[in-house]
Amino acid sequence: MRIGGIEAGGTKMVCAVATDDGTLLERVEIPTRTPADTVPEMLGFFKGKGIESLGIGCFGPVDLNPESETYGYITSTPKLAWADYNIVGAFQEALGVPVGFDTDVNGAIMGEAVWGAAKGCRNAIYITVGTGIGVGVCINGEPLHGLVHPEGGHILMARQESDSFEGCCPYHGCCLEGMASGPAIEKRWGKPGRLLQDKKEVWELEAFYLAQAVANYIMLYSPEKVILGGGVMHQEGLLEQVQKKVVDMLAGYVHHPMIEKHIESYIVHPALKDNPGILGAVYLGMRAYQNVQLETNEVSE
Amino acid sequence: MRIGGIEAGGTKMVCAVATDDGTLLERVEIPTRTPADTVPEMLGFFKGKGIESLGIGCFGPVDLNPESETYGYITSTPKLAWADYNIVGAFQEALGVPVGFDTDVNGAIMGEAVWGAAKGCRNAIYITVGTGIGVGVCINGEPLHGLVHPEGGHILMARQESDSFEGCCPYHGCCLEGMASGPAIEKRWGKPGRLLQDKKEVWELEAFYLAQAVANYIMLYSPEKVILGGGVMHQEGLLEQVQKKVVDMLAGYVHHPMIEKHIESYIVHPALKDNPGILGAVYLGMRAYQNVQLETNEVSE
Repeated sequence: MRIGGIEAGGTKMVCAVATDDGTLLERVEIPTRTPADTVPEMLGFFKGKGIESLGIGCFGPVDLNPESETYGYITSTPKLAWADYNIVGAFQEALGVPVGFDTDVNGAIMGEAVWGAAKGCRNAIYITVGTGIGVGVCINGEPLHGLVHPEGGHILMARQESDSFEGCCPYHGCCLEGMASGPAIEKRWGKPGRLLQDKKEVWELEAFYLAQAVANYIMLYSPEKVILGGGVMHQEGLLEQVQKKVVDMLAGYVHHPMIEKHIESYIVHPALKDNPGILGAVYLGMRAYQNVQLETNEVSE
Repeated sequence: MRIGGIEAGGTKMVCAVATDDGTLLERVEIPTRTPADTVPEMLGFFKGKGIESLGIGCFGPVDLNPESETYGYITSTPKLAWADYNIVGAFQEALGVPVGFDTDVNGAIMGEAVWGAAKGCRNAIYITVGTGIGVGVCINGEPLHGLVHPEGGHILMARQESDSFEGCCPYHGCCLEGMASGPAIEKRWGKPGRLLQDKKEVWELEAFYLAQAVANYIMLYSPEKVILGGGVMHQEGLLEQVQKKVVDMLAGYVHHPMIEKHIESYIVHPALKDNPGILGAVYLGMRAYQNVQLETNEVSE
């Protein structure tokens, strides 16, 4: 059985075809332009590939409420060409297969929970640290939705004492994304992170903000696994600094061997390397297929 | 059908008998001393009342993992007489009925979700602000557990610029409990909150910390309802100040009419007044009864 996946991002659209054990058969990256330009090219990739369903893990904000009239839409994004765009409808209509839909980060955590570092966990989180910061959350084996969807990259933060940077988030200033995203690093230090690899103070401060957020996520979600991905996490040694600081910041309050003894296997990189997002999208497609099967069975019974 | 409930606190043990529609028939408060003193008195209350099951919402930390050898224990609490005490075992053995078990705040949110302000919500949170601060979380209709249980009262906070108080949490200093609990108010201002009711600056600052935490909870859990209870929340006007500041702090980032237009019915007091904890415990007892019925049916099928 073949399933399609789309990891829809503001810069590129990753499209793939995979088998239902999570093996990628084909994968392309298409630059994100306008829907009128980009969607036909994406459809061209999927046509004739015999996919039984499709999953989309999408940049947000998106409408995930199945009861809503705008379910499956990208809503109020600053990427104006995509605002109020019915991305689920467009692919469902053109491909005629069931379409699963969630945020990009909820897709990624589900990919890691099914095939990656959080395999076997009921509760786990995936944090991507790149152009933006997003948090995907799996609770009881399901992606977390509520009033809307979690926006954990924007939690308000305590500034480090010596840090006078005001933060680059236009909404919150000193939120996690405002203090620790790729653009925040570039704005604070005057050049992008990849040109600052040897500057110890850059990564010390970066680890301070990431650890503060992760400590809070641990106290709030009580995850069995914490996965840190995204471009910024490629910096050598950063993950280890975050691990150490999280233990320091929790200060012995949360008692568990994973925190007290095995932090290096508790806060980890994605096992799916650069593919948690696209494999997560494939998993969303699998679920959409299964849901249709369940509904069909219920009707026929 | 009659169900027993225990809201186990560090100061008092609330014990009650209720019907399965959440009507309290009888309710007593027993001062918390040592288990040897207190538990027999509690058992005395329940004996002969014909309860079919019992629920316990307990101060923490507790072991909620059914696979664990110490499931049902209070674990490393500073209340030393209760550390490593098998509270579930004690009542199960003496009363011979199924016992449901969770944290006090998870009990409280389930009480509010079934019979109170969060009725009909799949996702909701209950924050108690008193001697300590605790957060109970209901996700998809279930209390949230994970690696351990959530400890949302201890999330790390940004200090308000003019506030030099170091925080009274012995673990974290400037966490929510350290900055905004009843003891934090007393330590910062030199007298307890009930003697500070007319001091505007006290409640302005209190609202700042509570709102910062609630804004983060909203971004992380995406709850459909936020309930603020506990002794400190009895201060007149405090809830309204928190509502206003949460909207300011979210800064238009989370789009939803509940936040943008109906904040007064989104962040609310408990509908169960002073009884969310004990009614939540009753609900935990109901679930324990139902689970036993389900298991019996499965075996007999």
